Amino acid sequence: MAETAPVAGDIEAAARRLKGHATRTPLLNAPLLDADCGRRIWVKAECLQKTGSFKYRGARNAVACLTDAQRANGVIAYSSGNHAQGVALAAQELGAKAVIIMPSDAPELKIINTRAFGAKVVLYDRDTEDRDEIGERLSGEHGLTLIKPFDNTAVISGQGTTGLEIAEQAAENGITEASVLVCCGGGGLTSGIAIALAAKAPGLKVHPVEPDGFDDVTRSLATGVIQINARRSGSICDAIITPSPGKITFPILAAHCGAGIVVTDDEALRAMAVAFARLKIVLEPGGAVALAAALYHQSDNNDVIAIASGGNVDAPVFRMALKKYG
Amino acid sequence: MAETAPVAGDIEAAARRLKGHATRTPLLNAPLLDADCGRRIWVKAECLQKTGSFKYRGARNAVACLTDAQRANGVIAYSSGNHAQGVALAAQELGAKAVIIMPSDAPELKIINTRAFGAKVVLYDRDTEDRDEIGERLSGEHGLTLIKPFDNTAVISGQGTTGLEIAEQAAENGITEASVLVCCGGGGLTSGIAIALAAKAPGLKVHPVEPDGFDDVTRSLATGVIQINARRSGSICDAIITPSPGKITFPILAAHCGAGIVVTDDEALRAMAVAFARLKIVLEPGGAVALAAALYHQSDNNDVIAIASGGNVDAPVFRMALKKYG
Repeated sequence: MAETAPVAGDIEAAARRLKGHATRTPLLNAPLLDADCGRRIWVKAECLQKTGSFKYRGARNAVACLTDAQRANGVIAYSSGNHAQGVALAAQELGAKAVIIMPSDAPELKIINTRAFGAKVVLYDRDTEDRDEIGERLSGEHGLTLIKPFDNTAVISGQGTTGLEIAEQAAENGITEASVLVCCGGGGLTSGIAIALAAKAPGLKVHPVEPDGFDDVTRSLATGVIQINARRSGSICDAIITPSPGKITFPILAAHCGAGIVVTDDEALRAMAVAFARLKIVLEPGGAVALAAALYHQSDNNDVIAIASGGNVDAPVFRMALKKYG
Repeated sequence: MAETAPVAGDIEAAARRLKGHATRTPLLNAPLLDADCGRRIWVKAECLQKTGSFKYRGARNAVACLTDAQRANGVIAYSSGNHAQGVALAAQELGAKAVIIMPSDAPELKIINTRAFGAKVVLYDRDTEDRDEIGERLSGEHGLTLIKPFDNTAVISGQGTTGLEIAEQAAENGITEASVLVCCGGGGLTSGIAIALAAKAPGLKVHPVEPDGFDDVTRSLATGVIQINARRSGSICDAIITPSPGKITFPILAAHCGAGIVVTDDEALRAMAVAFARLKIVLEPGGAVALAAALYHQSDNNDVIAIASGGNVDAPVFRMALKKYG
């Protein structure tokens, strides 16, 4: 598949490829959560997806789209951990070997699980080494196909299947207008959902949500030009601290999304405790920023759909969130 | 509805009443969980049900089956907390007032939430007071209709809708034979699921699961006569430490179920940590005993379906489970 913006038909094709493999995650609602907030909050629980995050969708679609020869040679990916697990499992299921480049400060659970899915993990230092350089070198030496985490048409299409499900589930619940808040790193999930909803449920308006200090997408949307974060590490939201929106994802975000929302690390931790108490789901900090935006920030709509994008959190971090805010 | 054993048609009628109100909870599977256990484990995540447990199903069906006059007078229920929340929410939704009798040692979250759903909560001492006596007195004084937690046809029918969903979801996943492990207190959920599966998926065999020291159903099934627990308190699994199987539920269990399985409190805590890491769901101890049986006890089948019946756990207990086993 050429590296261009996908259209709705690409996302529908991805949905057919994922059928019977990806979980159709529920759109959860809790009356006491609504009462807390004074509006209806719906949570698309992608933490319940295989591998604990939405990333399996894009990875499975991308590996399924490779030629037999490419799969025989194997794949390579770089990731702080969720794309890593998604690619590792998809490769294992489809009989391809996988090499994954991960930062040495990634959550332990993510590194252990990526290895458990049969991938070879190569660790690098986030502040001193360049993962793109490592990726290109290993890819060249071994003939591996690089599965980029977001600037890849098949990956965006796979993530967009989340949006097709949201369109169906919103219709089942009689929701025709809503703010859809999406945890946003490089913009693969956000752009995929935005394309799907523009086609299937145009009354549902997407807003990217980012952690404070890593608000590259919010600033890029505000200025119309791709902005880069000053830092590469230093947020508890490890899953979504990519340096800038992608060349493919940014024009999609600019065409379809409303303004970005920026939440603090503390708001993300509070949202994790709320998700524990009200929804009985486990969220990682980066997977909780959209719910945090729903809980603690204004919205144009009485119905808010927040994507809970992942739950791969180490137990000590989760215990800390509950101790502080549980 | 007369207080007799429901038939499959009663459960299908309950499913029609619950449509659009109860959540169709997912049947979760995680490749790494299967790898841990050497067999396929499927988890019916009823912790994601409204009010955080399956109890909403039976309560909603029971309140919906009342006459207008009964609803106008109000309802009463006794419960350690999950049936309490289910009845409170169902009554609130359907415009009936609710009085709930709860043990004073019930988890704080359950008491707070029951009040948040608009019910009047009356606390009693589990070791020195008789909840049946309190219930009958209040019911008589105020003309309230008692919604029993399990020995009630409409309640069992509502819980049985979980079994209809399992039959459909098993078929979608190509499962025709499996052990179905159900967290069991008085047997309302277990008997409802057993009736539904006997009609819709007879290759799925139900086994009740209980906490050590509160194995009344297991002993009753083994002896053919209703057995009573020696103690009324003293397990961390507060949701399922009822004194004995019911007069309506026991014959259903005896007709349809395989042998009971007994797990320790520690196994339940370990299963909570596994559900956190592998499935990203929050379970309370009593809601984790079926998963504990799947993880740590033998089974006849290569496919095991465990009901995760509830997630209403106070944060300190959950933190303790993660600290010990996370």
